[in-house]
Amino acid sequence: MSDTLVIVGGDAAGMSAASKAKREQPEMDVIVFEKGEWVSYAACGMPYYVKGAVEDLDDLVTVTPEQFREEREIDLRTGHEVVGIDPEAETVTVEGRGEQFEQSYDHLLVATGATAIEPPFDGLGLDGVFTIHDMDEADAIEEYVSERSPDSAAIVGGGYVGIEMAEALSERGLDVSLYEMLPHVLQPFGDTVAEAVEEHLREQGVDLHLDTAVSGFEGESSVERVALEDDSRAVDIVIVGVGVAPNTDLAEQAGIEVGETGAIATDEYGRTNYENIYAAGDNAEARNVVTGDPDHVPLALTANRAGRAIGQTVTGDPEPVGETAGTAIVKAFDLGAARTGIVDEQRASEAGFDPVSVSISASTRAHYYPGGEELTVTLLADRDSGTLLGGTVVGREGAKRIDTVAMALTGGLTVSELRDADLAYAPPFSPVWDPILTAAKVLAGKLDA
Amino acid sequence: MSDTLVIVGGDAAGMSAASKAKREQPEMDVIVFEKGEWVSYAACGMPYYVKGAVEDLDDLVTVTPEQFREEREIDLRTGHEVVGIDPEAETVTVEGRGEQFEQSYDHLLVATGATAIEPPFDGLGLDGVFTIHDMDEADAIEEYVSERSPDSAAIVGGGYVGIEMAEALSERGLDVSLYEMLPHVLQPFGDTVAEAVEEHLREQGVDLHLDTAVSGFEGESSVERVALEDDSRAVDIVIVGVGVAPNTDLAEQAGIEVGETGAIATDEYGRTNYENIYAAGDNAEARNVVTGDPDHVPLALTANRAGRAIGQTVTGDPEPVGETAGTAIVKAFDLGAARTGIVDEQRASEAGFDPVSVSISASTRAHYYPGGEELTVTLLADRDSGTLLGGTVVGREGAKRIDTVAMALTGGLTVSELRDADLAYAPPFSPVWDPILTAAKVLAGKLDA
Repeated sequence: MSDTLVIVGGDAAGMSAASKAKREQPEMDVIVFEKGEWVSYAACGMPYYVKGAVEDLDDLVTVTPEQFREEREIDLRTGHEVVGIDPEAETVTVEGRGEQFEQSYDHLLVATGATAIEPPFDGLGLDGVFTIHDMDEADAIEEYVSERSPDSAAIVGGGYVGIEMAEALSERGLDVSLYEMLPHVLQPFGDTVAEAVEEHLREQGVDLHLDTAVSGFEGESSVERVALEDDSRAVDIVIVGVGVAPNTDLAEQAGIEVGETGAIATDEYGRTNYENIYAAGDNAEARNVVTGDPDHVPLALTANRAGRAIGQTVTGDPEPVGETAGTAIVKAFDLGAARTGIVDEQRASEAGFDPVSVSISASTRAHYYPGGEELTVTLLADRDSGTLLGGTVVGREGAKRIDTVAMALTGGLTVSELRDADLAYAPPFSPVWDPILTAAKVLAGKLDA
Repeated sequence: MSDTLVIVGGDAAGMSAASKAKREQPEMDVIVFEKGEWVSYAACGMPYYVKGAVEDLDDLVTVTPEQFREEREIDLRTGHEVVGIDPEAETVTVEGRGEQFEQSYDHLLVATGATAIEPPFDGLGLDGVFTIHDMDEADAIEEYVSERSPDSAAIVGGGYVGIEMAEALSERGLDVSLYEMLPHVLQPFGDTVAEAVEEHLREQGVDLHLDTAVSGFEGESSVERVALEDDSRAVDIVIVGVGVAPNTDLAEQAGIEVGETGAIATDEYGRTNYENIYAAGDNAEARNVVTGDPDHVPLALTANRAGRAIGQTVTGDPEPVGETAGTAIVKAFDLGAARTGIVDEQRASEAGFDPVSVSISASTRAHYYPGGEELTVTLLADRDSGTLLGGTVVGREGAKRIDTVAMALTGGLTVSELRDADLAYAPPFSPVWDPILTAAKVLAGKLDA
């Protein structure tokens, strides 16, 4: 008799695991329970649907439920919620389509994802107040904008989602205000990136309120005003994007351990404290490539990769889920901003490093070649070892060059080794010293001093 | 008394060394002899001057002779040729401005560069036949095109220069034919890149002749025809770009050893067989990061970096010149093509590896995000160790992603480690799995099989 792999949650991690397990071992029974109706969709694409750059919400779906069922022979059950896990009996309790039943498993993957945080704001339930946590919500926002033609939007939160939605709604013709309670937007990207993005948001007409706490929303049935500490402002639509929290309730109720980050603790193969229960995706920890410590980075690649590795591991060919550098990139109107590793001096100190950093700005192309843009690169290193800890870039082109820094972290390179790397040069693509190399050169000089 | 550093040749390697030595040790006497009048110029920019994308030839000069002399206090003597080196006496013989004299040195850097190869073609001396080896030649080509308004051009050689000049002269309105004696253009980039570039060159109207040897050029005083084995074709201007050869005569006459590649042999600090004589730039070898063997890669970054390191070493703070991966990138009309490491199975086998390779094509952006272009990625690895050996990319955007592969080589990573690297994803910048990661994933699967 063949093994049964049960997967809770049908998004990136879950469906990657299901597909990989089935490809490696076609005789395995692979059952996925997804409480919603959408599976394997690109949540990161939702702002671009609202913006109008993506025509159809279905375009964000990579593989349809029918394809999973028919082409990949995965027993995918949408509209089914797993409400309990019994690790001793090796069963899950499932509710869906009006019934409740038990399903036994040999291997279980908990891929329940994360949920957009809803702060305790007054008026969260008003019409026109949205969090952007799933496809139905994206659809609802688009519909609201199309049908009600709001003039003004308030975005609460200056993270990825807030900034992408500011761009999307500006493109739709709305006057956009953005409220961030911290001193800067994009907190995980560090001050240099934040300041460049803030300047650009203002240039683009976004009314930016930093260090500004929102207390709630006011209105009759639809939202009419956003309430601040001692003020309130008229607004026609509100998007709340203040981060996500891992969905761990189901796991915790079953005695699955949660780490210090609040996400499910896993080993290098994605295993929880139960030998045959795995966790992957936005609800699970991953090991940080710089510190070696558990980290929680709810991003798509981490989820896909871990799911895929676990799908292979359960077939008897163990594959590590990979480490995270927390690499991230975001488009803010015409700017690209990106980060990898540790970019915060305080966090570096807490991890036992003696951080030294530099920021430089250099052109993305040879100085004489048309169309070059200034790229600002910040690198952080440990003084004693010279090891690179992380970096950020921001500019109108070239933000993907963060991958060069991410690869240096993967290789555990020193700043001098990065400086001496043989990167590609031709006038249309780079100066002789790529901006990343220039930053490494300056930082290496500072470390030598 | 302070040391004297004498440098032969005032381009990338020479001026980088001069500037660095003077910055680290201002009291050092730094004398640069350059036989021409141009120093520190961007030879790679010359095709873009001919194309018209760069307005003024002076724009290609990074630092002027006056700046070197006045701001950096370098004793730069243009129009001075070093005609002999006496390693025992530690002197060089110099001719210039009508006189000959000896100059003693404590440290000597030979940075004589390379010269465009002139094959034994008939009619090389005809008006309208150019190699593109220096700024005066670039100027002459531009002048010829502007004044004579030629209708048709023949490019001999399908390397970087040939392809860049094909683009430049097409842009100037000429009908361009390109002759390559090998079966493919861009031989160091491998067949996958070559075939993509060839298809694109034809789409752009270049009349491409592969496997076609040119025997010479015919005409009265100006070139009128290009002669092939059993044919000849009318043409108004010819550019010969069949590669460069290192300028080693001066060094060899002094007993400085040349390696198997034909360039000057050096150690990790750029030292020749004489303790206080260094070589750097297009005339010198560098160590290959993959094989550890001496290699000759006459490219700008290698020259700049080695010059800079030697400039530091001579001040008493030794700095390795860095290794080369042979990383290169070229623009061919709307395509970018790039390479790094070993991409040729035969060369890999000769270096003792058991090569396995894959090529994949994937979009540069999320599938639903507008403007993505197909990027074709080829990776080569060693079967036994799983170590990455090299790779190429080609496409309308994203060719700079070769740096990700170059960094993997710098870190000595395996294909699995590259596959598991945490690269940046957001829909406008990449699919969840960057094309480089997808290629690594497929290659890792092939290695496991």
